Amino acid sequence: MLTGVQVLLLGGDARQLEVIRKLTELDAAVTAAGFDQLHTPLDGAVQADYADDLFDGVDAIVLPPVGTDDDGRITAVFSDRELVLSGMQLARVPKHCVVYAGMAKPYLRELCEQYGIRLVELFDRDDVAIYNSIPTAEGAVMMAIQNTDITIHGSNCMVLGIGRTGLTLARTLQGLGAKVKTGVRREEHFARAHEMGFEPFYLSQLVQHAANIDLLFNTIPTMIVTAQIIANLPSRAVIIDLASKPGGTDFRFAEKRGIKALLAPGLPGIVAPKTAGRIIADCLSRLIMEDTNKRGNGQ
Amino acid sequence: MLTGVQVLLLGGDARQLEVIRKLTELDAAVTAAGFDQLHTPLDGAVQADYADDLFDGVDAIVLPPVGTDDDGRITAVFSDRELVLSGMQLARVPKHCVVYAGMAKPYLRELCEQYGIRLVELFDRDDVAIYNSIPTAEGAVMMAIQNTDITIHGSNCMVLGIGRTGLTLARTLQGLGAKVKTGVRREEHFARAHEMGFEPFYLSQLVQHAANIDLLFNTIPTMIVTAQIIANLPSRAVIIDLASKPGGTDFRFAEKRGIKALLAPGLPGIVAPKTAGRIIADCLSRLIMEDTNKRGNGQ
Repeated sequence: MLTGVQVLLLGGDARQLEVIRKLTELDAAVTAAGFDQLHTPLDGAVQADYADDLFDGVDAIVLPPVGTDDDGRITAVFSDRELVLSGMQLARVPKHCVVYAGMAKPYLRELCEQYGIRLVELFDRDDVAIYNSIPTAEGAVMMAIQNTDITIHGSNCMVLGIGRTGLTLARTLQGLGAKVKTGVRREEHFARAHEMGFEPFYLSQLVQHAANIDLLFNTIPTMIVTAQIIANLPSRAVIIDLASKPGGTDFRFAEKRGIKALLAPGLPGIVAPKTAGRIIADCLSRLIMEDTNKRGNGQ
Repeated sequence: MLTGVQVLLLGGDARQLEVIRKLTELDAAVTAAGFDQLHTPLDGAVQADYADDLFDGVDAIVLPPVGTDDDGRITAVFSDRELVLSGMQLARVPKHCVVYAGMAKPYLRELCEQYGIRLVELFDRDDVAIYNSIPTAEGAVMMAIQNTDITIHGSNCMVLGIGRTGLTLARTLQGLGAKVKTGVRREEHFARAHEMGFEPFYLSQLVQHAANIDLLFNTIPTMIVTAQIIANLPSRAVIIDLASKPGGTDFRFAEKRGIKALLAPGLPGIVAPKTAGRIIADCLSRLIMEDTNKRGNGQ
């Protein structure tokens, strides 16, 4: 339980409603700012206007999945008002307070460092990344169905990278009946891909494998789907790039060659906000509980 | 091969382009009407304006998947002109000529009967229905992802009927990681569903199984998702009805209860026109070949 733990939750979208639900279920004292336009009440949480004194005595600050922007602004889809996080506020929190966000831009990282506040980036965690790979894979499947005139079943799919997202996606495509080639760098990934019934190849041979591909999914966040690769794809191919911005595809060349190439947006929050919210909520509540227990034990 | 076989193809959408491609590949003499607005040439086929003399001496008439409407009109998305099939035309075809359509309304059935012309409804065939179930299942998956805020993975799905479409859909959902309950009538379907790792139940017990369902897919073309069933669904449930019009759901009551209920349109032609076209083309060319061989052998 989180009885007596003071949580300040700032901004965000529908996902944060799941976070609020979970934290209040665990009896945390949640104050939420950035929800003034929300038409349904926040069960168990105190709704407040953004103000400096909200920061007094809080044990945890929960920011939206994207953290802040480069100027400290916090996105809040349920509010018209501007929420900006600055040193003025962080100076007020107790030393043990922890800031949680999905990810952090340099602004947020530097600010937390400056005030000696611990910052936790949830999306960096392997468990969260694996759970999030499920809605990401379903979103990629949706995009593939929407953007081709063939079925995924029986199609020739290629997945570049079988890390946390790639493995889930390859398995999902296989479950739909696609033939799945996976491009890997490491020998243990080659072995795992083989074991799972994919057709693995080493990325150094990518260009030789590009012919006859209907759908190319990239999960590697460096320039990998180069002009040379794109030139070797059949013209019917569709590229769906799931790597974080700016992706790993030469989009300019794809357009020039008339090949459809799409940079997928943050899919979990779009295709399954409730599931995505629960993923964050479950991890966050576990972490806050651990931190609280450590403090209780004088660590 | 279909060398020397005269095929008249009338109207339709992108799927018919695959049919034309396949038939001309097999060396049939294809005349196509209803494609005057198409910007790409029809490889190997003769493009013609709709006229009565097109019917002289043809061995096969290929209508669009939906056949004609109740007044004999043939849908042609690549033409602004009206194509109407009437006795005037059918009177001109040789006795052995066969009319092929996906399905037929009473108008078309009666017309063919009146002129002693054999009519083949492709979508009635088990093989075509099973092949078509693949794009249907992918379309249903797309609709499910678009219309829920959770992932299919881990969700509680229910599929009513495990015939040609239901079985494919249940397997597809299972492949995505859903928990799949299947409602069946026949004991052999119960056994098959059990063997495949679904959770089968008899449709007579449907109301008892309705609680805790996230996604309900119906494939049974009679009123089965009644007001009583809908009243027992959780309010978050989404109903996707794949049975042919008017479906098997009390849509009026679903709306009244605020439960999202969607009657899926003809999904294969929408989500995968190329695959759907190939399914028709493969079956059609096989059937025309069989008919030609029979005639050649004097049968």
